[in-house]
Amino acid sequence: MVIYFATTNLNKFREVRAILKEYGIHIEHLNAKGVEIQSDSLEEIASYCAVQLLKYAKEVLVEDTGLFIKALKGFPGPYSSYVFKTIGNEGILKLMEGVENRRAYFKCVVAYCKRGLKPVLFTGVVNGFITHEKRGEGWGYDPIFTPEGYDKTYAEMGEMKNKLSHRRKAFESFARWYLSEGPR
Amino acid sequence: MVIYFATTNLNKFREVRAILKEYGIHIEHLNAKGVEIQSDSLEEIASYCAVQLLKYAKEVLVEDTGLFIKALKGFPGPYSSYVFKTIGNEGILKLMEGVENRRAYFKCVVAYCKRGLKPVLFTGVVNGFITHEKRGEGWGYDPIFTPEGYDKTYAEMGEMKNKLSHRRKAFESFARWYLSEGPR
Repeated sequence: MVIYFATTNLNKFREVRAILKEYGIHIEHLNAKGVEIQSDSLEEIASYCAVQLLKYAKEVLVEDTGLFIKALKGFPGPYSSYVFKTIGNEGILKLMEGVENRRAYFKCVVAYCKRGLKPVLFTGVVNGFITHEKRGEGWGYDPIFTPEGYDKTYAEMGEMKNKLSHRRKAFESFARWYLSEGPR
Repeated sequence: MVIYFATTNLNKFREVRAILKEYGIHIEHLNAKGVEIQSDSLEEIASYCAVQLLKYAKEVLVEDTGLFIKALKGFPGPYSSYVFKTIGNEGILKLMEGVENRRAYFKCVVAYCKRGLKPVLFTGVVNGFITHEKRGEGWGYDPIFTPEGYDKTYAEMGEMKNKLSHRRKAFESFARWYLSEGPR
């Protein structure tokens, strides 16, 4: 049986393939973007998306990620990618001007689904803080987020980021389940 | 044949029923929220939603509305209601601090769908400006939006707002089509 990971981002596919390879799990690339619904819950978005993708493959993986900022009631949350495309890091830093509570977390939800079975969900969370300015060159919100216990932003960490990331946590949690229990 | 307008907001239902009554079109209330997908296009969101709702009724209407701010690349756009719940008008005004170009528009898209036919779309747009502070008591973004040609915000206009609103424009456009061409 082949597991297909659905993403239109080839870099993301390579990153996840490398993580799962450490567990002896092989995935193929499904170059499709499933239907993403509007919801405050990444779990709901990923589950719905995975079920829709079963028309392309018998066994699929999808992930959805968001940055949740406490002082902004979770904003940008499930709409992180739209918010990044519009107001960007500059907008987030402006909204956080004068705000003392800088707490935020990255959350990644992985949905695994096999035809005939319900989706199974796995979560990876990394707590941290929003910086006061952009630091480092990196993708998305990486230049304005420092994980708890570190001085550097995700963007300044380089390879180190992939060792502790929310995405790695979620996919490792999937891998452990798949190898022990797995789909029944 | 009965047309069902799907919304979980009873005030919105009453407002739309009153508009369509002027054209002799009677609607019933479908207290359901269809699946809203994530998309930059209100048209895509409303069409998808209408098609899903056909499982409840043979002839349905849905609407989706957004506030699009030029200087913020259209933000909050299709995610206006989530953005309102999180950063609210305070957040929008903060993002607009020091921004000279205050241009924005409200857009309402109405999707009409009948079983066996494709959805038909109707649009209502009202151009205007983002104020520098909240003015008037009103719902959503009404206190920070002044329509072009007026000094008052939507929130300060009272009943007058309903006479010129983006929602009225979209539903009037639907009504004229329904009475002339209609579904074939």
